[in-house]
Amino acid sequence: MSAPHNRHCIIRGVSLTRRELLCGLAAGITASAFNDLSFAQAHSSDLRIDADRLRQTLEALSVYGRPAGGTFADGVSRFAYSDADVAGRKFAMDLLRTAGLEPRIDTAGNILAMREGTNPSLKPILFGSHIDSVPSGGNFDGQLGSVSAIEIVRTLKDHGTTTRHPLEVALWSNEESLTVGSRGVAGELQAKDLDRTYNGIHMSDGLRKIGGDPDRLSESRFAPGSIHCYLELHIEQGGNLDKAGIPIGVVEGIVSIDEYEVEINGLANHAGTTPMRERRNALLAAAQLIEAVQEVVTREPGRQVGTVGRLEVSPNVRNVVPGLVKLSIELRDLSPEKIARLGEEIQKRAQVIAKQTMTEISIKQVEHDAPALATPAIQAQIEAAAAGLGLKTTRLPSGAGHDAQVIARLAPMGMIFVPSVGGISHSPKEFTHWQDCANGANVLLQTILLIDRA
Amino acid sequence: MSAPHNRHCIIRGVSLTRRELLCGLAAGITASAFNDLSFAQAHSSDLRIDADRLRQTLEALSVYGRPAGGTFADGVSRFAYSDADVAGRKFAMDLLRTAGLEPRIDTAGNILAMREGTNPSLKPILFGSHIDSVPSGGNFDGQLGSVSAIEIVRTLKDHGTTTRHPLEVALWSNEESLTVGSRGVAGELQAKDLDRTYNGIHMSDGLRKIGGDPDRLSESRFAPGSIHCYLELHIEQGGNLDKAGIPIGVVEGIVSIDEYEVEINGLANHAGTTPMRERRNALLAAAQLIEAVQEVVTREPGRQVGTVGRLEVSPNVRNVVPGLVKLSIELRDLSPEKIARLGEEIQKRAQVIAKQTMTEISIKQVEHDAPALATPAIQAQIEAAAAGLGLKTTRLPSGAGHDAQVIARLAPMGMIFVPSVGGISHSPKEFTHWQDCANGANVLLQTILLIDRA
Repeated sequence: MSAPHNRHCIIRGVSLTRRELLCGLAAGITASAFNDLSFAQAHSSDLRIDADRLRQTLEALSVYGRPAGGTFADGVSRFAYSDADVAGRKFAMDLLRTAGLEPRIDTAGNILAMREGTNPSLKPILFGSHIDSVPSGGNFDGQLGSVSAIEIVRTLKDHGTTTRHPLEVALWSNEESLTVGSRGVAGELQAKDLDRTYNGIHMSDGLRKIGGDPDRLSESRFAPGSIHCYLELHIEQGGNLDKAGIPIGVVEGIVSIDEYEVEINGLANHAGTTPMRERRNALLAAAQLIEAVQEVVTREPGRQVGTVGRLEVSPNVRNVVPGLVKLSIELRDLSPEKIARLGEEIQKRAQVIAKQTMTEISIKQVEHDAPALATPAIQAQIEAAAAGLGLKTTRLPSGAGHDAQVIARLAPMGMIFVPSVGGISHSPKEFTHWQDCANGANVLLQTILLIDRA
Repeated sequence: MSAPHNRHCIIRGVSLTRRELLCGLAAGITASAFNDLSFAQAHSSDLRIDADRLRQTLEALSVYGRPAGGTFADGVSRFAYSDADVAGRKFAMDLLRTAGLEPRIDTAGNILAMREGTNPSLKPILFGSHIDSVPSGGNFDGQLGSVSAIEIVRTLKDHGTTTRHPLEVALWSNEESLTVGSRGVAGELQAKDLDRTYNGIHMSDGLRKIGGDPDRLSESRFAPGSIHCYLELHIEQGGNLDKAGIPIGVVEGIVSIDEYEVEINGLANHAGTTPMRERRNALLAAAQLIEAVQEVVTREPGRQVGTVGRLEVSPNVRNVVPGLVKLSIELRDLSPEKIARLGEEIQKRAQVIAKQTMTEISIKQVEHDAPALATPAIQAQIEAAAAGLGLKTTRLPSGAGHDAQVIARLAPMGMIFVPSVGGISHSPKEFTHWQDCANGANVLLQTILLIDRA
């Protein structure tokens, strides 16, 4: 076993560009910190969270932002900076206090609560999620991971258990729009990013309302290398685990996203007087392009996805051949090389379609989100923790974005997924069986303990 | 030659439903009125319109509604009920007075001017078009036919020529929205049809502004059988004549239109977490349906057209698999049986697509416009008139709607098309060469004279 100092300070004092962090240095950290044989070895603990209390806490939290006259099943609108968000955050901070912690709010609005460890030279194991929701959202997205983090520190207190590492609970602010809080600690947030309105509230004002300070954002920044690792429990928000009947998903990483804006220029013309063969129909070209995206994305094995989600037609009237179509193409996969290649194939197909339909198609890449790979050794620890609890696991990518993908630029990262019934999320119908919630919280607890002992 | 009375009063006093009129009775009228061998015989006249005056008049009219600081090439916004419409109508009425006529405005806002014939027992030959334009329209749509009608009565006056039949010039009100004026004389307009706003003017108020009376619309009605025939000269608004280099188009009829509203229900879902094979993507289904419409419409010979002109996606955001698409399908052809059959084939294809894409597709027919067939004998007279002028002709359908299709329910109808450069219409770029304008007006004049002498 290498000295604690060596395991935790790999990149302390090293100035890293964001790109270097994105392009695999996190994996480098991993190798040093976790490639220890003893690390992959399961030291099972008998400690379990209180499943009833976990459920009660989730139900109690669900009151803040619940539709008037509704029940738990009616979901929640606890969007960031709303009164419900403020109330829910107070509720969460009070709970952290019952666990004996002293929560603080950093300038990016994050709620952070440190639990001391026995070895002052070790860096904290960070874990948590977010409690803000989308408008008309569900009671599990972010909230399960947050409440589980709180439940874990309460369980440790109840059992008088102290870890070697400090443990730090993080409830990130405003995950649903811009992952504000996690970007704050990653040093990727500036005051100008908050110069916009979100659900009727100016974001700077909103940040002040929840106790942050948009003028002192740099103070929220975590130094790279100052965190031992970050763990997050989350509902899958997809249907893979539910469909496969597997209780625990071990996240391989958060996918890379390439986003393109497409403009198809044809010629708007009278739908009655323009013969079919003379039309330069932008919507016909768009239809062929949508099918090309589907074909290019699905003709090879893998979990890559491609979506045309937005499409606008001009002039968009019944009796005019469409002259202009604008649409979006989004490609996602853990492998940025794969989606880059798919993007190129789609571009080639588009040029053929343009020729056939006598239109002009311009495709512009407007976004490239690098993947955030979960640290392989942490994936192994999660699997070991689940195995110790007798829970089956599968590895899978996260198609959705999470605070974890931001924190992965600072520290080794791991994510645990539990099944979403029917794959439904961002909806009042979002649901995860209570047993799956408890399983997820216990896997998170056991993973923390395994990493702490490694 | 049968007695004039028999030729003109075929349906006088017969009560006809609109449906009977639509479904072919007009053809019955035709047979009796025009299937006379002498009728198809060209009696060429040396009379010609004044091509320079025609052009000058079109240019003079173009001032009313011209964009500030613009020229003839900048087109016109003389939409119905605008101040420009009022001014243009006054200009036209003054011109009719210079031809010795006394124009009147009926309760539907039409400008009508009768020129007496030598035989009081004969019914009028009606001809004209409209002078209202679409906003940002051109100087030829409607205006060429209107100014040519005026030029013809001026020419007859100049040469002291009197016809046997009375001649009646009609400048129909508000063709561009609802063909208000022609529907008025057809008895198909009610006050409630005008209870809407058009370009910021309530249509009832607009009708009063131009001298009509929405409370006495029934007074504008022409009795079926009271008109000998109706003729209209119009620009093609398509590119067929221009492309073929043929100066005169003989309209076979105004096409039948079937309009469908389509609703495709899939399932909106997260574009990152929903695997490709599990998607119920309404936009993918829509793309396949757009291609199916194209294929079904183009795989058999003919001039039928099919258009998906309007399409709306929900929720229409980049990162959500589209759950709902609404779109329009419009089919046009002279043969209502053909487009009914194409509509059925598209419905069948839609059901296959729905199954393949795990969506539900509902297709509802919301409109059926019967075709308005031009009277075959009048088509022959137009051809004879053009031949007498040494002008090549071709028969073609009108894919666009016209006042003539409404008047065809009252009387035998014929339409003359002249080429539109590049097929452009409803645009300031709309243009017809001056020689083509003069040719069209001369063919209209000669057709009137042939019919008058038949």
